[in-house]
Amino acid sequence: MSQAVRHDSMRAGNLEVVLGEVSRRGPLTRAALAELTGLTKSTVSKLVGDLVDAGILAESGPARAGERGRPGVDVVLSGARVAALGLEINVDYLAVCLVDLTREVRRDVRRERDNRERPEDVLAELRTMALEVLEEARGLGLTVAGAGLALSGPVGAGLLVSAPNLGWRDVRAAELLDLPVAVELDNEANLAALGELWFGAGERDFLYVSGEIGIGAGLVVGGELFRGPNGLAGELGHVVVSPDGPPCRCGGRGCLETYAGQEVLGDELVAGEALGVALASAVNLFDVDRIVLGGIFAPLFPKLSEPITRVLRERLGKLRGSVPTLTASGLGAQAATLGAAGRVIHRVLTDPGAYLRSGR
Amino acid sequence: MSQAVRHDSMRAGNLEVVLGEVSRRGPLTRAALAELTGLTKSTVSKLVGDLVDAGILAESGPARAGERGRPGVDVVLSGARVAALGLEINVDYLAVCLVDLTREVRRDVRRERDNRERPEDVLAELRTMALEVLEEARGLGLTVAGAGLALSGPVGAGLLVSAPNLGWRDVRAAELLDLPVAVELDNEANLAALGELWFGAGERDFLYVSGEIGIGAGLVVGGELFRGPNGLAGELGHVVVSPDGPPCRCGGRGCLETYAGQEVLGDELVAGEALGVALASAVNLFDVDRIVLGGIFAPLFPKLSEPITRVLRERLGKLRGSVPTLTASGLGAQAATLGAAGRVIHRVLTDPGAYLRSGR
Repeated sequence: MSQAVRHDSMRAGNLEVVLGEVSRRGPLTRAALAELTGLTKSTVSKLVGDLVDAGILAESGPARAGERGRPGVDVVLSGARVAALGLEINVDYLAVCLVDLTREVRRDVRRERDNRERPEDVLAELRTMALEVLEEARGLGLTVAGAGLALSGPVGAGLLVSAPNLGWRDVRAAELLDLPVAVELDNEANLAALGELWFGAGERDFLYVSGEIGIGAGLVVGGELFRGPNGLAGELGHVVVSPDGPPCRCGGRGCLETYAGQEVLGDELVAGEALGVALASAVNLFDVDRIVLGGIFAPLFPKLSEPITRVLRERLGKLRGSVPTLTASGLGAQAATLGAAGRVIHRVLTDPGAYLRSGR
Repeated sequence: MSQAVRHDSMRAGNLEVVLGEVSRRGPLTRAALAELTGLTKSTVSKLVGDLVDAGILAESGPARAGERGRPGVDVVLSGARVAALGLEINVDYLAVCLVDLTREVRRDVRRERDNRERPEDVLAELRTMALEVLEEARGLGLTVAGAGLALSGPVGAGLLVSAPNLGWRDVRAAELLDLPVAVELDNEANLAALGELWFGAGERDFLYVSGEIGIGAGLVVGGELFRGPNGLAGELGHVVVSPDGPPCRCGGRGCLETYAGQEVLGDELVAGEALGVALASAVNLFDVDRIVLGGIFAPLFPKLSEPITRVLRERLGKLRGSVPTLTASGLGAQAATLGAAGRVIHRVLTDPGAYLRSGR
């Protein structure tokens, strides 16, 4: 490793350490930051200066004339200059939200629409919506660091592998969207789980269950999303409830989706018991103590809660000693777009050096 | 952070970097190590010297008189001085193995025995076996860095929470064992999965299925064991095969163990199909492409393979595009003790600074 590379990587590490302290603890003076990080005061001042210039940090409090940059002034995370875009294509709506670095939602646009048509047309409409929000961001003085796009199917790099509920296959979604900011694709259930992590009840270990036409889940352990080796983990919809049950679009029989997907959901008792059986298997494998119901399951929570909890108690009470708590997500249909924008924000906060080098 | 603390943590980091290169790449000269790590030659010489003194590295090749410590001589991982102990209490046997730092098994002792009696008596016998192997290690010139104990049930710090198949509950196993080296407890399926990772076919992503009286599983992703928030992940035995099936000791019905546990295993076709259903659910949740059958399932592999693969193909082929490969573990009954010893070795190799500070 050359001297120069080492200096850069040390600087990136120090930027992350300084920003991490402010983002975890709130307002801090430069002197307090030096004490907390073990860095010299002059190093801290230089790093804070760079983060303030990039609009990631701002000085707070009554900074009297001539005081700018002085050790006694607090620095805080700034919501005034850096933001991220969250996008979603669901079967029956398109959505775009704009979230600033302090995780405040600055704009949320949602359009009901049957998206079961050519991907090109759907993505063209989402592009128009996104460009409008980008224009508004500019008006608000916000630089958009990147965008995330939530899709109801497995994704690879820039590619939607399949979205059975839309009838789509191998769609180069990021390319078709062609936005002036980088767009990352991810699965809807994964992003909704991250939305719940960063914008929800503040828990760090939970299984988020996303009920749409398909049923997916996102497992969060220690504040990290569990993706599995290929990024396809959490296919709760195809966990077996009853091996000889109704035929499923996956080719199997008796998968959870054949009992509790949006299009078959009739009797909440049956759906709740089926969810209970699939969740008992998931808890045994994932070892999770908290289950958050999202999507269509959130408004149905009052009806689903009893049968699910009963089955979990019967199947898990003895072996685990306790039964996972069951709650409804408070984020509604916003969960996935919040997670999509949140991922971009999380990256800026955990690797500010890369954002600074990008020269925005 | 004080200057002294920082120096220690830098030294620990550098020790790890140097040892990591040798353990990944094999024999290297000090000069090559300096080039690979970006450290100065004198720093490398000091670090290598300390690792040689501790018996972790050794000089190899024809080191001519007066050449010791010279830059031209290769250093390699040494199997001559540091080792670890792997212990296991299963329902019908006790086992102890001694593994050196190069992961060579130096001793393997196994005693058939019905362990469904008082934990004190079983642990006393295991203690006698372990002390004998420790004595042998001393004779071989090996310092034992620590021990791991595999148990068939969930464990906390030093405590076996329960082992239903032994009829044990809340057993302070490490304390009762009272060995002159530190003993860490872990679940048998977890340790067998780690055994497969370090001593098996060399894969880094797989689900290891442990068939004993109980059925457990250990998921390895990117060379790391997935433990879940409470360390209880992988309870494959209680994944639901059929919700109205036979009653299970967990309080539920139709769990995998009621079809394929060692004591009920009669018809391999039925057992294979039940395993297929539970594994299809596990693959959907864990997203894993490789399944390794261990324990009693390894010798039954020729009979189990067809029904399992058929069910996996029916249920996973369409959605995932491919079906996970299924193999039998080559480690036999040794998997868990190898994993138990392997964990200690892994710790010495990834944090040699801590081992050096322990002053062994």
